[in-house]
Amino acid sequence: MTEPRKISVFRKEHFNAAHRLYNPDWTDAKNDEVFGLCNNPNFHGHNYELIVQVIGYIEDETGYVVDMKVVSNWIKSEIIEKFDHKNLNLDVPEFKNLNPTAENIAVVIYDKLRKVVPLNLELKIRLYETERNYVEFPVD
Amino acid sequence: MTEPRKISVFRKEHFNAAHRLYNPDWTDAKNDEVFGLCNNPNFHGHNYELIVQVIGYIEDETGYVVDMKVVSNWIKSEIIEKFDHKNLNLDVPEFKNLNPTAENIAVVIYDKLRKVVPLNLELKIRLYETERNYVEFPVD
Amino acid sequence: MTEPRKISVFRKEHFNAAHRLYNPDWTDAKNDEVFGLCNNPNFHGHNYELIVQVIGYIEDETGYVVDMKVVSNWIKSEIIEKFDHKNLNLDVPEFKNLNPTAENIAVVIYDKLRKVVPLNLELKIRLYETERNYVEFPVD
Amino acid sequence: MTEPRKISVFRKEHFNAAHRLYNPDWTDAKNDEVFGLCNNPNFHGHNYELIVQVIGYIEDETGYVVDMKVVSNWIKSEIIEKFDHKNLNLDVPEFKNLNPTAENIAVVIYDKLRKVVPLNLELKIRLYETERNYVEFPVD
Amino acid sequence: MTEPRKISVFRKEHFNAAHRLYNPDWTDAKNDEVFGLCNNPNFHGHNYELIVQVIGYIEDETGYVVDMKVVSNWIKSEIIEKFDHKNLNLDVPEFKNLNPTAENIAVVIYDKLRKVVPLNLELKIRLYETERNYVEFPVD
Amino acid sequence: MTEPRKISVFRKEHFNAAHRLYNPDWTDAKNDEVFGLCNNPNFHGHNYELIVQVIGYIEDETGYVVDMKVVSNWIKSEIIEKFDHKNLNLDVPEFKNLNPTAENIAVVIYDKLRKVVPLNLELKIRLYETERNYVEFPVD
Repeated sequence: MTEPRKISVFRKEHFNAAHRLYNPDWTDAKNDEVFGLCNNPNFHGHNYELIVQVIGYIEDETGYVVDMKVVSNWIKSEIIEKFDHKNLNLDVPEFKNLNPTAENIAVVIYDKLRKVVPLNLELKIRLYETERNYVEFPVD
Repeated sequence: MTEPRKISVFRKEHFNAAHRLYNPDWTDAKNDEVFGLCNNPNFHGHNYELIVQVIGYIEDETGYVVDMKVVSNWIKSEIIEKFDHKNLNLDVPEFKNLNPTAENIAVVIYDKLRKVVPLNLELKIRLYETERNYVEFPVD
Repeated sequence: MTEPRKISVFRKEHFNAAHRLYNPDWTDAKNDEVFGLCNNPNFHGHNYELIVQVIGYIEDETGYVVDMKVVSNWIKSEIIEKFDHKNLNLDVPEFKNLNPTAENIAVVIYDKLRKVVPLNLELKIRLYETERNYVEFPVD
Repeated sequence: MTEPRKISVFRKEHFNAAHRLYNPDWTDAKNDEVFGLCNNPNFHGHNYELIVQVIGYIEDETGYVVDMKVVSNWIKSEIIEKFDHKNLNLDVPEFKNLNPTAENIAVVIYDKLRKVVPLNLELKIRLYETERNYVEFPVD
Repeated sequence: MTEPRKISVFRKEHFNAAHRLYNPDWTDAKNDEVFGLCNNPNFHGHNYELIVQVIGYIEDETGYVVDMKVVSNWIKSEIIEKFDHKNLNLDVPEFKNLNPTAENIAVVIYDKLRKVVPLNLELKIRLYETERNYVEFPVD
Repeated sequence: MTEPRKISVFRKEHFNAAHRLYNPDWTDAKNDEVFGLCNNPNFHGHNYELIVQVIGYIEDETGYVVDMKVVSNWIKSEIIEKFDHKNLNLDVPEFKNLNPTAENIAVVIYDKLRKVVPLNLELKIRLYETERNYVEFPVD
């Protein structure tokens, strides 16, 4: 294969965390109306499944776009160590003033990984909050 | 995060239905040749898994593109109530003259949801007929 | 390993079928009350997942209890060929006078396989009607 | 089928909850040593998957051991409404003085369901805390 | 539906194979450093899950883009018969001089299928090496 | 809860390995006839999923039967380090003279773990060779 081949590689990791959804600018009644059970002030939690997609060219010497162990280490050092077994609202600085919805968590994860993934590699995040609810960022 | 962030959100639901594949303009022999076991005149059935993807911008106030409960309600009122525990050929008007292949079911679902999902939100459907056969509409 | 080792081996297969739940001795109203949507006279359907467990001693010469291809062939000839892409109520003689609930389907499958699986091998059936509803027969 | 057939039926439901593992009689150091990240005082959380197994005889009239909708309602009223989107330590009275490990949660769920499931039906619980960690109660 | 509808259809198949990752131009030490356990000279193996995506227009007469049995047969004759229960390095000519990483396997599969899939149909491959590591080719 | 509660806890781990099935006392023709593709002399491979079930009483102080991290470490040190990314026939001494069928692998895993799991805890192994083929040892 002589022409360079552009391909996506995907790595799945997970973390378990507590969170609460609410907008501090709103009344309790408004928060209950919008966020329902997710607004429990004592928090609830999820097993988050995170899939990181890295897009680039296959290297001739290795047959890799990037070593999956390297991708796994990026995810572990930037995300898992900071999010796993945490309370997202209380323990993770990015959510002090940002509602930890699946959408916002995915964007925060993207922004954190974007700083360590080399810029010649494109990046995309899929985050499962439950088996039935998930998000993907950015959009193609 | 000040710039608006475009993201995909996904919701999975399911329905169980019977169907039969055939073309009324063809002979029985031709239908058997093309559709094989799927042409059983007494019908067979599937557990359909439906994933609805909605694409839009994250709202500052909620951290949502759209409330997943709202997406779930769209799916339930437009699709599940009309397709679940039904015979697609006999009970669902859209398939009176349209072969209920996975492809056609996905297009019908898209068209029905497109009428209720606000137009500022893009829409995409994935439909699993079995774990090994599925379709996605529209193409990017 | 000199002493004989008793072990369970499991094989998963699947079939897709239509069915309807009702009791012909009851009124329509009573059938609707008990079976709800499952009583649709036009039928609905499922992707059934079938797991067959065979229990016996490991043979020294092969390291098998029984060749999985043989188990798979038993399932295919006795069950899949007769149930797949069928209407259980109309096409399968065992359900002409027997309501095709998951419970009854599992017992019928057990009885059919019990006739071909050698008697020195114990047999157990798990049948998934959906991911959330399944049955196991017999009880230990 | 004239002889009565004893069979297991299974129903899967889920709930999302926050929890923290610790023993109030121990020092913080001892709690950290034993429970590690699970002892985060701000809580973490999980998507719990609950499988309820009910064992009994198939009724001739219905072909059911028990209607799955009835099983689902038992689980919803006794467990899901009380555990879903809750903080197990703070919101669920049974865990005020009981460490909410998967083992203890499963026993509490069993005890709560045992009060509503008729005594002619045997009962067994499987609880997934994560895809990789789960428990089953009681033992055969 | 009068306008032509472009849609993706997906078919999942699997094969089991042994492989070894290494670059024959490198020293053993360099191979160990880069490929780690994957460089075991006695090989290791995987259950590969292959998803083939075919993109085209729905045919009016059938409601199919292409019959899934035809897609399945393309995959079986071009890929499964040549890769299943094989040693990729020793038994598959394409990997005699090409490192059988997931990336390279996906490109080889694409190239082999591209020769039999009609050119009016677009083609895309997803290959799972494990549940946590997978690749997709080509990129949109 | 004053009476002691006996419960099962389960931990899932995985390993990837190559193997070949054959009986050295048989002719090649006989091996081909019995083991088919699994007798490829160049080996093939699998992603093995291993579920270890430990049965015992819940400890009052911890709410654990046994810390899952301890179970995970037993599996890692006794099984994963010795089987993962290995050729079972060539690299694992237990299979020098024992055919590495799923049945025999499960028994070997059981025997290895039984030496490190305290004797007050019962032990049971489930091993998936593929999603469709798995074994369980011992039988209840």
